Amino acid sequence: MAPAPTATTLGGEGTTSHRLATTVAGNGAHEGAFKAMVGNKAGVAKNAARYVLAPDVTAEAFEAFIDEAKQAVGADNVHVNLSASIEDHERGDYLHQPRFHDFFPIDELDKYMASAAIQPASVEEVQAIVRAANKHGQPLHTVSIGRNLGYGGSSPRLRGTAILDLKRMNKILEINEKSAYALLEPGVSYFELYEHLQKTGSNLWVDCPDIGWGSVVGNACDRGAGYTPYGDHWMFRSGLEVVLPNGELVRTGMGALPDNDTWQCFPYGFGPYHDGIFSQSNLGIVTKMGIWLMPNPGGYEPFLITVPRKEDLGPMMDIIGQLRVRMVIQNAPTVRHVLLDAACLKSKAQWTGSDTGAPLGEEEIEKIARELNLGYWGFYGALYGPEPVRQGIWQAIWGSFQQISGAKSFFEKDVGPESILHSRAKTLAGIPNLLELDWISWRENGAHNFFSPISAVTGEAAVAQVQLVEEKARKYGFDFMNTLIVGLRELHNINCLVYNRESKEERDRMRACIHELIDEAAAKGWGEYRTHNEFMDHVAGTYNFNNGALAKLNDTLKDALDPNGILAPGKCGVWPKRYRGRNL
Amino acid sequence: MAPAPTATTLGGEGTTSHRLATTVAGNGAHEGAFKAMVGNKAGVAKNAARYVLAPDVTAEAFEAFIDEAKQAVGADNVHVNLSASIEDHERGDYLHQPRFHDFFPIDELDKYMASAAIQPASVEEVQAIVRAANKHGQPLHTVSIGRNLGYGGSSPRLRGTAILDLKRMNKILEINEKSAYALLEPGVSYFELYEHLQKTGSNLWVDCPDIGWGSVVGNACDRGAGYTPYGDHWMFRSGLEVVLPNGELVRTGMGALPDNDTWQCFPYGFGPYHDGIFSQSNLGIVTKMGIWLMPNPGGYEPFLITVPRKEDLGPMMDIIGQLRVRMVIQNAPTVRHVLLDAACLKSKAQWTGSDTGAPLGEEEIEKIARELNLGYWGFYGALYGPEPVRQGIWQAIWGSFQQISGAKSFFEKDVGPESILHSRAKTLAGIPNLLELDWISWRENGAHNFFSPISAVTGEAAVAQVQLVEEKARKYGFDFMNTLIVGLRELHNINCLVYNRESKEERDRMRACIHELIDEAAAKGWGEYRTHNEFMDHVAGTYNFNNGALAKLNDTLKDALDPNGILAPGKCGVWPKRYRGRNL
Repeated sequence: MAPAPTATTLGGEGTTSHRLATTVAGNGAHEGAFKAMVGNKAGVAKNAARYVLAPDVTAEAFEAFIDEAKQAVGADNVHVNLSASIEDHERGDYLHQPRFHDFFPIDELDKYMASAAIQPASVEEVQAIVRAANKHGQPLHTVSIGRNLGYGGSSPRLRGTAILDLKRMNKILEINEKSAYALLEPGVSYFELYEHLQKTGSNLWVDCPDIGWGSVVGNACDRGAGYTPYGDHWMFRSGLEVVLPNGELVRTGMGALPDNDTWQCFPYGFGPYHDGIFSQSNLGIVTKMGIWLMPNPGGYEPFLITVPRKEDLGPMMDIIGQLRVRMVIQNAPTVRHVLLDAACLKSKAQWTGSDTGAPLGEEEIEKIARELNLGYWGFYGALYGPEPVRQGIWQAIWGSFQQISGAKSFFEKDVGPESILHSRAKTLAGIPNLLELDWISWRENGAHNFFSPISAVTGEAAVAQVQLVEEKARKYGFDFMNTLIVGLRELHNINCLVYNRESKEERDRMRACIHELIDEAAAKGWGEYRTHNEFMDHVAGTYNFNNGALAKLNDTLKDALDPNGILAPGKCGVWPKRYRGRNL
Repeated sequence: MAPAPTATTLGGEGTTSHRLATTVAGNGAHEGAFKAMVGNKAGVAKNAARYVLAPDVTAEAFEAFIDEAKQAVGADNVHVNLSASIEDHERGDYLHQPRFHDFFPIDELDKYMASAAIQPASVEEVQAIVRAANKHGQPLHTVSIGRNLGYGGSSPRLRGTAILDLKRMNKILEINEKSAYALLEPGVSYFELYEHLQKTGSNLWVDCPDIGWGSVVGNACDRGAGYTPYGDHWMFRSGLEVVLPNGELVRTGMGALPDNDTWQCFPYGFGPYHDGIFSQSNLGIVTKMGIWLMPNPGGYEPFLITVPRKEDLGPMMDIIGQLRVRMVIQNAPTVRHVLLDAACLKSKAQWTGSDTGAPLGEEEIEKIARELNLGYWGFYGALYGPEPVRQGIWQAIWGSFQQISGAKSFFEKDVGPESILHSRAKTLAGIPNLLELDWISWRENGAHNFFSPISAVTGEAAVAQVQLVEEKARKYGFDFMNTLIVGLRELHNINCLVYNRESKEERDRMRACIHELIDEAAAKGWGEYRTHNEFMDHVAGTYNFNNGALAKLNDTLKDALDPNGILAPGKCGVWPKRYRGRNL
């Protein structure tokens, strides 16, 4: 077999795809948006070698593994020449045939290239693949659908790992109206779950993240966030089925009791409660999950509150924090930097006449805010429940904002058709959509990276984090824009850093910027909740209390459950013994 | 050294202690109640041998361990002659010096007798004890305070295990008013936390279980329940510090990032989320925990709704389930069998003129209900928030109950001073108390065992579970009484089975009854969420999907983290390799 290539050329016939979501509104919007986004082939070289190999896996072992995989799932569901299969998929059904690479590579695309993609259709097929992987030493990286584009897409942390793509396992196994839950396979997308509930006249709401094409199970496993009262996806979940790295099948919580009817009602079961070690994890493959669904609250009204000045962020966050911890604010709302809204509507070049790459100054940002009739910060929230309940809550919220001069409030009736409030109105009601894809087109050949530290829901913490990230973004030549998701007691501070994916120089700058941010944030006691493959080891390294005691615990668990180092080596900084300390 | 005794005589100068809580109302009520309860020495023999030994631990190894323990924590904090130390404690401060045995033994007291009790005052001392235990092969059983009386008290699962009692580690390390949490050591009781918050004028509420003398950390680790909106103690928690079985200290979640300020704000951190494996677990010793506290909701009103007929349970549960899953019911309320209320007020002999041991018939139960002006079932709930909010919620709740003929509602002003509504009013507001101790005195020399299966919050499931447990209780000669705690989507069905602890014949019957219940419940798909030492292996054995795959996972984790089998062998059915399969 040919040796693995050391690099793949980025570039090619790159076409810019602005306004991804809005230009494909209407029927089939999500497929169209996806197609538009991948129009430039994301820099895959035409003449890439047939496959790359993981360290210490010989071509013979890999081919033997692939043969067994084909026997297990059928040759049609095993893809080895991934650059070719990417082209196939572009001609096919984009929503149901995810591509197997990083959409927004920050290093060379080749760095996190998979060797193969395998698409089982059942738990038994997953088990067979896992057993074959153990036999031949072939690492596997699981994706539920693979649409986690902001954090590496489908790409594995370790080059040459084979992707185990669970999109074909897309059964909605149960919807329980009375106890308000769904039991799902990992391939079910938010769109599919929502459409099923609509079609069947269910009274239950979904909670979805900004982009609705991803996996419900996958998002929860990655501890993603949504925006309704059920916004903490890991919390509002009950019961896992997991294929362990040795191929054994376990059910957690009440699921371990045969023929039970409480697996999705009570997460804990009896004895140690395992679910958490299978989140952001390479210790097992989740093949079923129960998700709690919110009964229709009997009324709903989204709103926007804007504050005019940059320095209003502190007082605003203190108000929101106190309303949230008292559960006056019922859900997980967001506070958005005005440039994020601006970027959803037009590109930087369209706003300013050119895209030099240099970050905008405060005057330019304020000019855009005036033009949009938005403040510097926008608080997108919602009220849930019958009218009298909503009115009482609104009085408490809007009353609290009276202490910020110039604060304005808007309901959907108050804003024009272009307002982001309309798309947030969907998301805050758990209606999946793709409209947030648009801000990625802020820049020519736009790609993005999330820098996502956690903070307390206080003005002091939010302001300090924004200052740090903005300073670094400007230092490295990027615009600062962010969205702060308000959890019960924490902010997910999602900094959305947009760059030109066709420019190696920009990618290098972005990488340097984020490495510096990780270090400086850690020095202030702030850690990230999730990150791209490129930064996993670095972020994991900041969680180093007591000489890395938690990393040692992770190593112990990894070695015990996955002695052959099969599952997702390096995910979230956890390496199996075979690769540990090798700087891969 | 003397060999371990094979049995200890139960009995002695047993005095009956009725009305434990109510007779000691006023200052120091909890200490008094505890003293009254232990008045008969719970059957500890006067002439017990000095200590018992764990299997495979020689007297030499044990004594060497004890010597090192004394060096680590001081000789005053190491107790070897436990029957003597029990007597010491009876003369001392009962709340702060817990006893080290099972209050309500169902087998002989000796069966779960500890060899020693060690009381460290710091994390470093805990680590020193754990290292000494590894060196000498001495098993350790951690108790935070040891007041988990319904499930075995302080007693270890494996006879001869030494108790690691953390009561001296009782610092309230932080109260954060803004983010609404406490950081606690394990020795802090609900009473202490509540009193601290009162004393400092805090705006934060505690959520406490029925009995307020236990450990906040310990109750959460055992996945106990309370009754405010924060009733799921494991859910409303963020951040652990854990001494692992090898003596290493880890902090989970954001705690692994040095000098962070989000450890108690965001539980998950980065990478695998470990906390769950340290609950109901023998994989680590929790030395710090963050607990979320509820800000004063701005108004509060407890209520009682009674329904007259036994068969009203089904419709009642369906109503409650739908109100709860819609979060109209804001908290974790309870539905109680009338005998539980009756038993809190008077003993069986006082109610019926005699205590033959035979269970009451339906006519006698209904007579008691009439006398108390209660229904057959009482739904004790509460409304939280300002008056208009409470009124809206009450209209929705009471409106739903109109479909049950004869349903009656009561607020505190509507009931006499003896009503259980007054003690529930405290508990539902997180005010720790001991009033629920009283129902244990239903029988002469009352002791109790909880049989606690989980069900869905549906009428069908609740009625079916009650039928099964009631049938078995009567078959074995016990009165049936229970309390159903309503979680978000599950009922904790706590069946409170009271027996005479001085009667070996009754204890044998109770044991047989519960073993039969475990089997028959499992056959119907119901599992227990917690159990007494005596039933741990049996309950764990019912969680046997796929040939006990979850038990094998527990074994793998146990062997990896605790290769010497030091921590709490057998807890929740998880045994270390050294004792596995030995029927201990």
